Amino acid sequence: MSLKKKPVTGMKDISTSEMEIREYLIDIIKDTYKSYGFTSIETPIIEHIENLCSNQGGDNEKLIFKILKRGEKLRLDEAENESDLVDSGLRYDLTLPLSRYYANNEQNLQKPFKALQIGSVFRAERPQKGRFRQFTQCDIDIIGEDGYMAEVELISATSEALSKICPDQSFSVRINDRRILKAMIEYSGIEEDKADKALICLDKLDKIGFEGVFKELVDIGIEEGNAEKYLSLIEECDLETEDSIAHIGEILKDNIDADVINNLMSIVSLVKNINSKISLIFDKTLVRGMGYYTGPIFEVSMDGLSSSVAGGGRYDKMIGKFSQNDIPACGFSIGFERIVTILSDKGFIPQRKQKKAILYDKNVTKEQLGNIIKDANFLREKGDIVLVTKMNKNKKFQKEKLSLDGFTEFIEIFND
Amino acid sequence: MSLKKKPVTGMKDISTSEMEIREYLIDIIKDTYKSYGFTSIETPIIEHIENLCSNQGGDNEKLIFKILKRGEKLRLDEAENESDLVDSGLRYDLTLPLSRYYANNEQNLQKPFKALQIGSVFRAERPQKGRFRQFTQCDIDIIGEDGYMAEVELISATSEALSKICPDQSFSVRINDRRILKAMIEYSGIEEDKADKALICLDKLDKIGFEGVFKELVDIGIEEGNAEKYLSLIEECDLETEDSIAHIGEILKDNIDADVINNLMSIVSLVKNINSKISLIFDKTLVRGMGYYTGPIFEVSMDGLSSSVAGGGRYDKMIGKFSQNDIPACGFSIGFERIVTILSDKGFIPQRKQKKAILYDKNVTKEQLGNIIKDANFLREKGDIVLVTKMNKNKKFQKEKLSLDGFTEFIEIFND
Repeated sequence: MSLKKKPVTGMKDISTSEMEIREYLIDIIKDTYKSYGFTSIETPIIEHIENLCSNQGGDNEKLIFKILKRGEKLRLDEAENESDLVDSGLRYDLTLPLSRYYANNEQNLQKPFKALQIGSVFRAERPQKGRFRQFTQCDIDIIGEDGYMAEVELISATSEALSKICPDQSFSVRINDRRILKAMIEYSGIEEDKADKALICLDKLDKIGFEGVFKELVDIGIEEGNAEKYLSLIEECDLETEDSIAHIGEILKDNIDADVINNLMSIVSLVKNINSKISLIFDKTLVRGMGYYTGPIFEVSMDGLSSSVAGGGRYDKMIGKFSQNDIPACGFSIGFERIVTILSDKGFIPQRKQKKAILYDKNVTKEQLGNIIKDANFLREKGDIVLVTKMNKNKKFQKEKLSLDGFTEFIEIFND
Repeated sequence: MSLKKKPVTGMKDISTSEMEIREYLIDIIKDTYKSYGFTSIETPIIEHIENLCSNQGGDNEKLIFKILKRGEKLRLDEAENESDLVDSGLRYDLTLPLSRYYANNEQNLQKPFKALQIGSVFRAERPQKGRFRQFTQCDIDIIGEDGYMAEVELISATSEALSKICPDQSFSVRINDRRILKAMIEYSGIEEDKADKALICLDKLDKIGFEGVFKELVDIGIEEGNAEKYLSLIEECDLETEDSIAHIGEILKDNIDADVINNLMSIVSLVKNINSKISLIFDKTLVRGMGYYTGPIFEVSMDGLSSSVAGGGRYDKMIGKFSQNDIPACGFSIGFERIVTILSDKGFIPQRKQKKAILYDKNVTKEQLGNIIKDANFLREKGDIVLVTKMNKNKKFQKEKLSLDGFTEFIEIFND
């Protein structure tokens, strides 16, 4: 029987040209984040099934690749349902394993702990163009810092990394706070048990517009008057970012702690003060999917592109689920695959080292081969990339193909 | 219920200090291999269960992490055995997915194709000290080159990478050929169907000695006379590498094609000619576990350490299992985790960039914070690593802890 040549459904093999882009991006991201004092850690790809299914991951928990028990622990004849068969699964993000890691190693870590993680995560989503079931996430997290300096650093560092990656592109950072979203719900008279559903409707505003959201809100059982009151809070009154935050703070003053508003103001003013090129927008419709966020949330979009290229927020209650001891935490994740796609579609090729190919004729002697490799090693020591390869029958085609991979110089050696 | 803080059995979280070593190693390995014209590719961590269980992986096939089917495809009530429940698994090495990749993309790839792969592989081995169920492999492979230049390049490039990693350490490369092993079996009169078992015995020579191997050979049903004849072939007659190959070639001349011996001679003489520092030893007892090897095999050991740090060989028949079309292939894999352990145990710390920490007092103003970050960014642009962090109550302890992470300069900012 012949084996299967294609990758498994929803996964992809990564070609040499895409790898060039990926490695280039990872170098920039790592260098930038490390210059801010973030340090790399890595957690296993396999995680406890109990942790993966603990209601931290929202819809991602429906998409887990589960791993079969092994040996004596697998009792197929006694198994009544899926959970009897599995003991672990593949992680769907890097935040849950990081929280586990922090809870397990707290006493040995710097305070605050600034983690950098680049790794594969897995979600068994319905296969669709441009989305894969294994993909890379690049996360930075600051754990143990409860003040706004965490958000300021995450936004500055990520904006800098993105500007280095796409120097000709302008970005906007949209920012909101989960507590403002909650206060808006309360202010509008919407019942607390409908809050999550109402936010899911709100999240669709850019797709279905005000009328669409209004209809959906009413459909989930929210009174028309309350739905109107809620949407009227959203409607833009042409204000600058800081004025807009102050304005909503004033409206919601009976529903929200003034500290929440001041905290958001501080983030905005500090980020602007540090880098006037970062465009920061207060976006009352920004929700972000994950249920674990507790404070400020943010998302970066590239001007001219619909979907976001980075996102994050504060999650002060997750580590406590592991250690019974709440620790403030805040993270930012770059949409790595999205950026790879943008650069690939543009035909972007990272700058390469000098690439030389030495083609030797099939009749060269062993002594000549020895000298060829010695010469190649000499050039390699100087920093060149040197390929030593047999001359094919169709030399012209061979050189054309090597040119596509960036080889610019060809040295041909024949039997002398 | 509280969640699980430790990693799953047999896996480990990787700390910041170990990550420093790993990233340092990966940089050296990548740079070296790329200078030889190897190019990176990546395959999914999840592989078809049919490919994983196709008798390519030897004992590793018993150690596969299998992934449960999802949705309607999982029919627990109808499942009679394990294979009804799973559709994929985690790869146990990088060679099998590479062969699948090559078979699937042959027409688009350079000929020969020189692949560099660094990635995680998974084996559900019984947990034991220093061995983990997820670990990193670093492989280079040359596909489409049938001559000895493939072996020469793999050995030269890997020796160079290892010398850069451990410049004070001396290495030996032991080399053999599967066809010589086979000819030795034949010459000794051992039945072909006992060949595999005999090689497993031979592989234990350094652990159980000649007498031990003799006993095991007889135990598996080999006649005493044949076992003696076989072992007498192994016994060292104090010869130089090339003379030793010539000697065995002379003895086995009726059992082996002279090309096999000449090929091995060419590898040895070329490698020596290129780099006289590489110590190449013909080792008639070298077997290497994987069943898929078809020609020369090799292994690198560090002097003074028992286990090997790299190994590889030629596998000309694997790609044909996917494409029905045999393609010559040869690969070398660095024992990445072994080298990480060696360097960690030595207390090795890679050279670091200048690391500065700016500690700010809790009473600094927002304006001061803005200036602190601007100053930090200025230093970062110059190439420094700059951590901006709140001064803890116990400042002395905080600075000591930062020193352990390589911070050498501390700037303290108070409210002015």
